[in-house]
Amino acid sequence: MKLLKERIRAEATVIGSQVLKVDHFLNHQVDVDFLHKIGAEFYDRFKDEPITKILTVEASGIAIAVATAWFFHVPVVFAKKSDSRNLDQDTYTSEVFSFTRNNSYLMKVSRRYLGSGDHVLIIDDFLANGRAVQGMIDIVHQAGASLAGVGIVIEKGFQEGGSQLREQGLKVSSLAIIESMDENHIAFRE
Amino acid sequence: MKLLKERIRAEATVIGSQVLKVDHFLNHQVDVDFLHKIGAEFYDRFKDEPITKILTVEASGIAIAVATAWFFHVPVVFAKKSDSRNLDQDTYTSEVFSFTRNNSYLMKVSRRYLGSGDHVLIIDDFLANGRAVQGMIDIVHQAGASLAGVGIVIEKGFQEGGSQLREQGLKVSSLAIIESMDENHIAFRE
Repeated sequence: MKLLKERIRAEATVIGSQVLKVDHFLNHQVDVDFLHKIGAEFYDRFKDEPITKILTVEASGIAIAVATAWFFHVPVVFAKKSDSRNLDQDTYTSEVFSFTRNNSYLMKVSRRYLGSGDHVLIIDDFLANGRAVQGMIDIVHQAGASLAGVGIVIEKGFQEGGSQLREQGLKVSSLAIIESMDENHIAFRE
Repeated sequence: MKLLKERIRAEATVIGSQVLKVDHFLNHQVDVDFLHKIGAEFYDRFKDEPITKILTVEASGIAIAVATAWFFHVPVVFAKKSDSRNLDQDTYTSEVFSFTRNNSYLMKVSRRYLGSGDHVLIIDDFLANGRAVQGMIDIVHQAGASLAGVGIVIEKGFQEGGSQLREQGLKVSSLAIIESMDENHIAFRE
């Protein structure tokens, strides 16, 4: 997505070799008009699939999933990362290690909101090691649902998550794939 | 908001005297077409204010804030509840006790995304004890920003959060206010 790459190049901050900060438009402050364009782009890439649910994980995937679901007119389900007394006890659960937070958490989805009749599009903001996406795929499998594919805003192509998912035969569609980055330069995969 | 009250009456589950479950359309699975109507309703209630930012807190406020921001064409800022190495170190911070999770957390917003020029609309899914909203108001004050008001989808009118905020002279606009509830009946404030 050309506009996204332009914004990343002009506005993102790279810290060290791993951290790409785009939190002024994507995952802390959200530019909703730009988000609308991201949703339209995911719709264009997956519109031939009979999607019934869009699955993401709290928190920063939610805005993007909602913007995408707008075009598909299907519900968003967001997996929970933490226990709440309001969450159903009867959940699909997958253990996920987060490199960003340096701990593991239990990703949970109520069994009422995914089932064998669902055709699921997974959406997330970043793909790096791919652990969160693997957790969501695990939950889709537990539900007996089918997987249309995975839509990612920014993939860190120099980490292994994307290639591992593609080796599994999954359709992984990233709006921008970063091949390499440092504080002076960001190179995208063509 | 008549349609919301009808959905709550027809579809919500009450557990004990405190928990109202609407997670099939609002805060686990999200009905995005209905969300669009909620966003339009908040726009109608606050459109005379020169809003520059919509503030919410992760996770379940995000979808509602995005749907509202759609109509205002202003950015959403979502306060973070947990530390991430990707978050700026220079933040506005407020300590909030969560009755749902039975612990305190530090609510944080990067200083880059709220300032003295902002006129802020706070949006959240539920208002009960009001601690999350008080934390957001604290952050708006720390930023030197002005507060347009607080938009809430469902207020538990039998808890003290709403009345405390209104006693402070704030405009609190809730789309549905529950006066009392048990497993057989939900009564709304007119």
